[in-house]
Amino acid sequence: MSSRTLYELAGADPTRLFSPFCWRTRLALAHKGLDVQTMPWRMSDKEAIAFSGQGKVPVLVDGNHVVSDSWQIALYLEKTYPDAPSLFGGEGGMPAVRFINAWADGILMADMSRLVAVDIPGHMTAEDAAYFRSTREARFGAPLETVCANREQDVERFRQNLLPIRLALRAAPFLGGDTPHYADYSVFGPFQWARCISDFPLLKADDPVADWAERMLAAFDGLAAKVPGYKIAA
Amino acid sequence: MSSRTLYELAGADPTRLFSPFCWRTRLALAHKGLDVQTMPWRMSDKEAIAFSGQGKVPVLVDGNHVVSDSWQIALYLEKTYPDAPSLFGGEGGMPAVRFINAWADGILMADMSRLVAVDIPGHMTAEDAAYFRSTREARFGAPLETVCANREQDVERFRQNLLPIRLALRAAPFLGGDTPHYADYSVFGPFQWARCISDFPLLKADDPVADWAERMLAAFDGLAAKVPGYKIAA
Repeated sequence: MSSRTLYELAGADPTRLFSPFCWRTRLALAHKGLDVQTMPWRMSDKEAIAFSGQGKVPVLVDGNHVVSDSWQIALYLEKTYPDAPSLFGGEGGMPAVRFINAWADGILMADMSRLVAVDIPGHMTAEDAAYFRSTREARFGAPLETVCANREQDVERFRQNLLPIRLALRAAPFLGGDTPHYADYSVFGPFQWARCISDFPLLKADDPVADWAERMLAAFDGLAAKVPGYKIAA
Repeated sequence: MSSRTLYELAGADPTRLFSPFCWRTRLALAHKGLDVQTMPWRMSDKEAIAFSGQGKVPVLVDGNHVVSDSWQIALYLEKTYPDAPSLFGGEGGMPAVRFINAWADGILMADMSRLVAVDIPGHMTAEDAAYFRSTREARFGAPLETVCANREQDVERFRQNLLPIRLALRAAPFLGGDTPHYADYSVFGPFQWARCISDFPLLKADDPVADWAERMLAAFDGLAAKVPGYKIAA
C-alpha cells in the first residue's frame, strides 16, 4: 500500500482513467520512480476532493502534502524528489518546458477538444455525463454535436499544427531528447485523453507523431497502454 | 577588431539587418558575451558565402570554424563556450528549447510571413527584391500582394496562436524565466524581422507579448533596438 494517493478522473468504467492532466501526473510519478495508489474520481463528486481546497483533479496526496493542478504537482515532485531523474532536463530546463505545457494546453488540447468532445459523455456515468455536457456546452456556446460537426475537415488543421512536434522528432525520439521528460508528458496527456474516450483517428498512421505516441504508450512498462482505449492513428 | 565575423542579411540600407535567423545568432552571441563583427550580406550574393558550403545566412566565422544555420550555431556556441551562461538553461534544457525553436519556425514565422512578406521587397536592393519576390512567390504559389491581402483579418488568428507565450509570461518575464535564453531568441527573431521591414502592427499595445518584445528590444544594451525599424504594437 503506497503512502501516495492520486485522485484521477475515471469514466463509468473506473479503469478508464482519461484526464489529460492526470496522465501528465501519472507519467511524472513514474518518471520519478514513485509508486502511487489511484483513487478513481468522478467529475460531479466535488465533495470527495473538497479537502484539497478546489474542485479539479489531479489531486496528489503525498504523506502530509496535498497538491492539486498538474503543473504545480510537477514542480512539487521536482523540488521534493531532487535525486530522482529531473522532469525538466535539470533545474534550468523548467521554463522552456513550461512553454511547451502552455502550448499543449492552449493550442493542442483546445484544437483536440473540437475533435473528440462529443464522444466523452458516452464513457461517463450518467451523472458525470450530464454535468460534463452542461458545463462544456456553456463554455463552447454550442451543443457538443455542433462543436464536433466539422471534425473530418477540422482534423486537417489540427494535424498541420503538430508541425513543431514533427520537427523536434527529426532530431530525437522524444521531445525530451533520447528519453522522455515532462515536455513529452505535457503533450502526450491530451493524446491519451483522446485515445481513452474517442475512436476518431487524430493522426494518420504514417505520421511520425503516431510513432512517438506509440513510444509513449510503451514507456514505463506500458503504463498508458494498460487503460482501455482506441487507436490514436488510422 | 573581433576574430569573429557574422554574415547577416541586410536591406538596401546595410544597417537594416532583418533576418529572423541572424537575430537569433546575434542575441545568442551577446548572451555568451562574445563580440562579433557584422558583415552585411545581400540575398542574391551567394558567392560571398560560398566558402560555407551553402547559400544562406547566418554564417558564423569563429577563428578557423565556419558554421551556418542558426540552430547549428547555437549548438556550436553552447559546446564551444561552456563557461559562458548557457543558452538553454543548462545541458539538459536543449531539447525543450529545440521544440520552441521549431514552433517559432513552423507556426509563428509561417503565420507571420503572411502578414508582412509584401513589405519586404521595398527595403531591399533592387537585385535582392527581384530575387526575393520570385523565390517567395514560387513558394507561396501566389503574388506577395495576394498572400498578404487579408492580413487585417489574418492577424486575429495570428494573435490567438500567441497564447502559449502569454501563458508562459504569466509566470516569468521571459520564456527562459527571470532572464532570457535561446527560447526567447528563437521567438523574438521573427518579431524583430517583422519590426525591421513592416509597419503592419502585429500586436495590440495591451498584449503582454508586446511588453515582452519591448524587454527583448532593451536586452544587451538595446542591441535589437539599435537597428532601423517600426513599432511592433499599435
